[in-house]
Amino acid sequence: MSKAARTPLPERVLLGPGPSTVDGRVLRAMSRPLIGHLDPEFLQIMDETQEMLRHVMGTENRMTFAIAGTGSAGMEASIVNLVEPGDRVVVVVAGVFGVRLAEQVRRNGADVVTVEGEWGAPVDPSAVAEAIEGGDTKVVAVVHAETSTGVLQPLDEIIAAARAHGALVVVDAVTSLGGHPVRLDEWDIDVCYSGTQKCLSCPPGLAPVSFNERAMARVKERSTPVRSWYLDVGLLDGYWGQARAYHHTAPISMAFALHEALSMIREEGLEPRHARHHRNHFALVAGLEAMGMRMQVENPDHRLWSLNAVRVPDGVDEAVVRGELLTRLGIEIGGGLGPLAGQIWRIGLMGASSTENNVVLVLGALEAALRRQECAVSPGAGVAAAIGAFAAN
Amino acid sequence: MSKAARTPLPERVLLGPGPSTVDGRVLRAMSRPLIGHLDPEFLQIMDETQEMLRHVMGTENRMTFAIAGTGSAGMEASIVNLVEPGDRVVVVVAGVFGVRLAEQVRRNGADVVTVEGEWGAPVDPSAVAEAIEGGDTKVVAVVHAETSTGVLQPLDEIIAAARAHGALVVVDAVTSLGGHPVRLDEWDIDVCYSGTQKCLSCPPGLAPVSFNERAMARVKERSTPVRSWYLDVGLLDGYWGQARAYHHTAPISMAFALHEALSMIREEGLEPRHARHHRNHFALVAGLEAMGMRMQVENPDHRLWSLNAVRVPDGVDEAVVRGELLTRLGIEIGGGLGPLAGQIWRIGLMGASSTENNVVLVLGALEAALRRQECAVSPGAGVAAAIGAFAAN
Repeated sequence: MSKAARTPLPERVLLGPGPSTVDGRVLRAMSRPLIGHLDPEFLQIMDETQEMLRHVMGTENRMTFAIAGTGSAGMEASIVNLVEPGDRVVVVVAGVFGVRLAEQVRRNGADVVTVEGEWGAPVDPSAVAEAIEGGDTKVVAVVHAETSTGVLQPLDEIIAAARAHGALVVVDAVTSLGGHPVRLDEWDIDVCYSGTQKCLSCPPGLAPVSFNERAMARVKERSTPVRSWYLDVGLLDGYWGQARAYHHTAPISMAFALHEALSMIREEGLEPRHARHHRNHFALVAGLEAMGMRMQVENPDHRLWSLNAVRVPDGVDEAVVRGELLTRLGIEIGGGLGPLAGQIWRIGLMGASSTENNVVLVLGALEAALRRQECAVSPGAGVAAAIGAFAAN
Repeated sequence: MSKAARTPLPERVLLGPGPSTVDGRVLRAMSRPLIGHLDPEFLQIMDETQEMLRHVMGTENRMTFAIAGTGSAGMEASIVNLVEPGDRVVVVVAGVFGVRLAEQVRRNGADVVTVEGEWGAPVDPSAVAEAIEGGDTKVVAVVHAETSTGVLQPLDEIIAAARAHGALVVVDAVTSLGGHPVRLDEWDIDVCYSGTQKCLSCPPGLAPVSFNERAMARVKERSTPVRSWYLDVGLLDGYWGQARAYHHTAPISMAFALHEALSMIREEGLEPRHARHHRNHFALVAGLEAMGMRMQVENPDHRLWSLNAVRVPDGVDEAVVRGELLTRLGIEIGGGLGPLAGQIWRIGLMGASSTENNVVLVLGALEAALRRQECAVSPGAGVAAAIGAFAAN
């Protein structure tokens, strides 16, 4: 017999880089009996989902919808539609997802110009502006919230430089959307993609994306066909738009889940939701610092509220600590990737996982694990500091 | 308030071209609280899913797994990995999915040679063999079960011709896998893809695929990079294989669902499951013919058991009938596509939807709707014939 049939799965407190906790309401919506993907009732759910996605993304873009794939499919959908062979494309790289963006652009035959920065700090916007100005740049791709480092990348100067040179801007908001403000229209972002399993607190499997009219016009003007049929936004426009032309079979159950998750966001309100993410992040940082730990991202303004990268104290075996948290208490946190492997933990406080109780829980659990590693931590200091921060905010 | 929040969704009997009915066990598995995608417990679910997929697909191929997208993403994954610009690729086209295959091959820069056939009949295998022999054919792509026409395409002669010329064979088994025998190793198929929402009776959103070692070797020998990062089977090998290298965040909940759906198939047994699909198809056809209707596919050996294409009687407005079935009784059946639009209905009996009761239900409902359209139907003839067929089989 298979595992699922013989034993129940363990319960986990999801404080890693995603998936985040999914509320019971969303799980129940997902488990509704299915209806057809061209059923009038389902088409209405699609319409409502688009409307709610527009709200979360701060946009009136008609082409705001969910790609039937994970966040990386959203990345690929953004790139494959905008980029043509030979295009000069500037990619900002200071983490795993910047590297991935560059790789996807490269596979589309473009001339990739990377602007690299230290992992764990934002990339200097003026270096990006300089790269944009260095040639006939068609597209600039940048990660807003770098999940691998916990960095919030400032976008305004980059977008202004792109605009001045007629380049389109693609923004990765996988780990920011729903936790940090993301305002496509106000910030003048052309294409944005995200994932469902981070601050939207929906299971992984869908990628919200939005293309503005400038981006859609660029797609229409292409001299070569979009290399992907599955992710071709022109064909997807036929399905999500008025024509309802059959393209793929929508992932019905995941669509139910996203609809419910977005309904919950609307009920909470976007601003209160962002404030909640900020408050819990702030308390976690207060607790970690009171324990003598150091955040990977030095400038508080450049720290993600949703994903907290903290340096592993000297002499501590980070994998042992993570393993203990998982097996003793069922708490998942993430390790570092690439050059930060072994050096940081990544503690996610995303969507339904961003709660006061989870902050207290993870601080208490970390403290106990660190003391077992003979790392000097004042007993109770982290939890006390966090609770103090809650009271003050 | 959104629709989902204010009213429950209607119940539907899913007898269209997919999604099919999803059993409550699968819905409950899907709604389990999430665990992380790199959690040891989740990795075990991935392993077990691969093992069960191998069983359903009749293969020992190591690279048997689920693409994080719908069936059309499975098609794209198959094509984008095997095909390089300039390759001569023979595509068999006699329906929507053949057309789609050709289009995907074209977007990969290949030299596409289509072998076209009438929609509603299999394509002559010797014409395909001739096309394969007509040049340095690298890949042959063929739809086993053409969802748009209800045709089961014979594969053996096509595979033999491909083998004789060193061409790889890609087979679309979206609407056959789990309902008809599909035996990759015995039939010597190199790459096969399917979808979850047909005879596997899992919600749409994943695409089972399998690549044999010959296909994996071809991928390794490519002189150009795979154009898709998301669907690159080399990278996916790193994630599904022993390395467990992070690629994308697996669609956890859908993976739970697929695992449970495959467990149910294993419990039923593959042969009994195929026999059930055959028996219910046979009874439906007996009923439709007793009502004076004609199947689109003339030769019974070329009819899909999972998807029954029946000609709309002269003078009947097919859309009115479909609309009545949906709104009066909550029964979904499909209409025709392309040249068959308005001319056929497509009645799916897939997975959990393939039951005796559904055969009786749809025959009774169709009879009533046809009589409202003043189409002469002997009262009760269809249902009686189907019940007779059940008794005889």
